[in-house]
Amino acid sequence: MKLASFNDHRLGVVLGDSIVDITDVCGVNSQSWPPVGMVQTIAAFDRQRGNIEAALTHAPRHKLSDVTLKTPIPWPNKVIAFPVNYHDHGKEMQADYRATHQGFFLKPASSLSGADEPVVLPNTPNREIHHECELAIVIGKQGKDIAATEWQEYVFGYACLLDMVVRGREERVARKAYDTFCPVGPWITTKDEIADASDIEMKLWVGDELRQHANTRDLVLDIPGMIEMASAVMTLYPGDIIATGTPAGVGPVAAGDVIRISLTGLGEMRVSVVQSKGGGTFIFDKKYVPPIIKQVK
Amino acid sequence: MKLASFNDHRLGVVLGDSIVDITDVCGVNSQSWPPVGMVQTIAAFDRQRGNIEAALTHAPRHKLSDVTLKTPIPWPNKVIAFPVNYHDHGKEMQADYRATHQGFFLKPASSLSGADEPVVLPNTPNREIHHECELAIVIGKQGKDIAATEWQEYVFGYACLLDMVVRGREERVARKAYDTFCPVGPWITTKDEIADASDIEMKLWVGDELRQHANTRDLVLDIPGMIEMASAVMTLYPGDIIATGTPAGVGPVAAGDVIRISLTGLGEMRVSVVQSKGGGTFIFDKKYVPPIIKQVK
Repeated sequence: MKLASFNDHRLGVVLGDSIVDITDVCGVNSQSWPPVGMVQTIAAFDRQRGNIEAALTHAPRHKLSDVTLKTPIPWPNKVIAFPVNYHDHGKEMQADYRATHQGFFLKPASSLSGADEPVVLPNTPNREIHHECELAIVIGKQGKDIAATEWQEYVFGYACLLDMVVRGREERVARKAYDTFCPVGPWITTKDEIADASDIEMKLWVGDELRQHANTRDLVLDIPGMIEMASAVMTLYPGDIIATGTPAGVGPVAAGDVIRISLTGLGEMRVSVVQSKGGGTFIFDKKYVPPIIKQVK
Repeated sequence: MKLASFNDHRLGVVLGDSIVDITDVCGVNSQSWPPVGMVQTIAAFDRQRGNIEAALTHAPRHKLSDVTLKTPIPWPNKVIAFPVNYHDHGKEMQADYRATHQGFFLKPASSLSGADEPVVLPNTPNREIHHECELAIVIGKQGKDIAATEWQEYVFGYACLLDMVVRGREERVARKAYDTFCPVGPWITTKDEIADASDIEMKLWVGDELRQHANTRDLVLDIPGMIEMASAVMTLYPGDIIATGTPAGVGPVAAGDVIRISLTGLGEMRVSVVQSKGGGTFIFDKKYVPPIIKQVK
């Protein structure tokens, strides 16, 4: 099943080129704030799946092209992210540490955006802003100290994720935390539709240029390992998102670019890049040129 | 006003040694998950304050000692934290970077705990786990690119905060993200009760030993500056928490310790420290001794 958020916090199931509105079926009040309807739906999914499937024939249906796809889970408990988790990206960044040595970091829920929303570049003229193409794991079940062998039980589904970043030497979290720096989507694909999450082909283009092309089989710390490590430290909750790290080929984007990200079985997003006059802060005033060895595959 | 969360997601106003249950007055369903009732109450506070005040005479009242104080805001959009934000702590940690150079990091919502809950030490025998005594700022109003001069309009209130950390060289976020590594409380004191947030005396004891003693006037990046920087990057939402950094005197805690934190006007918490068998992860297996110069004031 492909679960999406659209328009003003409506929940939908994507069927081909249409989307069925399941907000009411799921008992979600799309008017209430903060928007935790998808978190609730994921937590109750095993119980609600039958009702949702039964509603697909008669619930309101829209053309996918007529709605605005938002970020599937706008207010999760947390967005966990693993740094430098593909060897070739470690090489291009001249980074000593891998996810296996350094652990994870976090992105704020406020950085999440959706497939039909632009990436908004802050006013940081002395810095490059880079795309990072990633697989997102969505957690389906609360857990702590999850054994690597039990990982699959705690996964709800998967999605495409862009981990946008201001390059520099400051705290990684601050450089990755801007609003719209975490597009997720175009929807969440439930795990039953993905035969093997450790064999997902990932591609990212800027315009017509293929910048990143990799496969999740090349992850340094694999998906079971990430769930084990994250849950050793933190209770994972339904709706938590794990950004699994990016392969080689990261590079700058500019206003006017369109970033296209496609992961096998998880759909594709075309995200436009626009410039904001806001977002300037003195911590990013200092000029910084990243030490990147370009390795487009 | 002193706003608290207690027992099973009930909301209360603390009056001396009693607490008035305002859950129903605020229209919060304490049974619904995830627990965003306090976030909703903060967002609607200007509108609801009159109703809450009127209810204080007749709403259900308990002895404070008869309830369990939980973390005031269990499911915020984000918990922002500023590293090395007092000069003397920078010196003791031999840290080059200050909050003014490095920006902020994040703690997960899942790390939040309350005044009547213990800090649970993970099973990381090769590492010291340290207390950091901090002032928490609670955001009251949504904002982006907030000017430093406008900071006060966006603040809801203040609280005591313990930023617990596993010492080491790994990603700071991972070392600070354990469940119960962010006690906040004992309640949120609304800003109208604090004459000057840049003159709050902070004290932290472990047992009878005064370990940290400082004043918020010695912050490197001050409160207006923190709100300006954080909001340049991220939209701040009602209920967001900012951990403002710790002064000198950080040090290890062990099972059986009681950490006492007291901030002028914000109450005090006595948090017991217990040991867990869980929480072990190979990233913290390597022995690490922190380069701390002890500077108890």
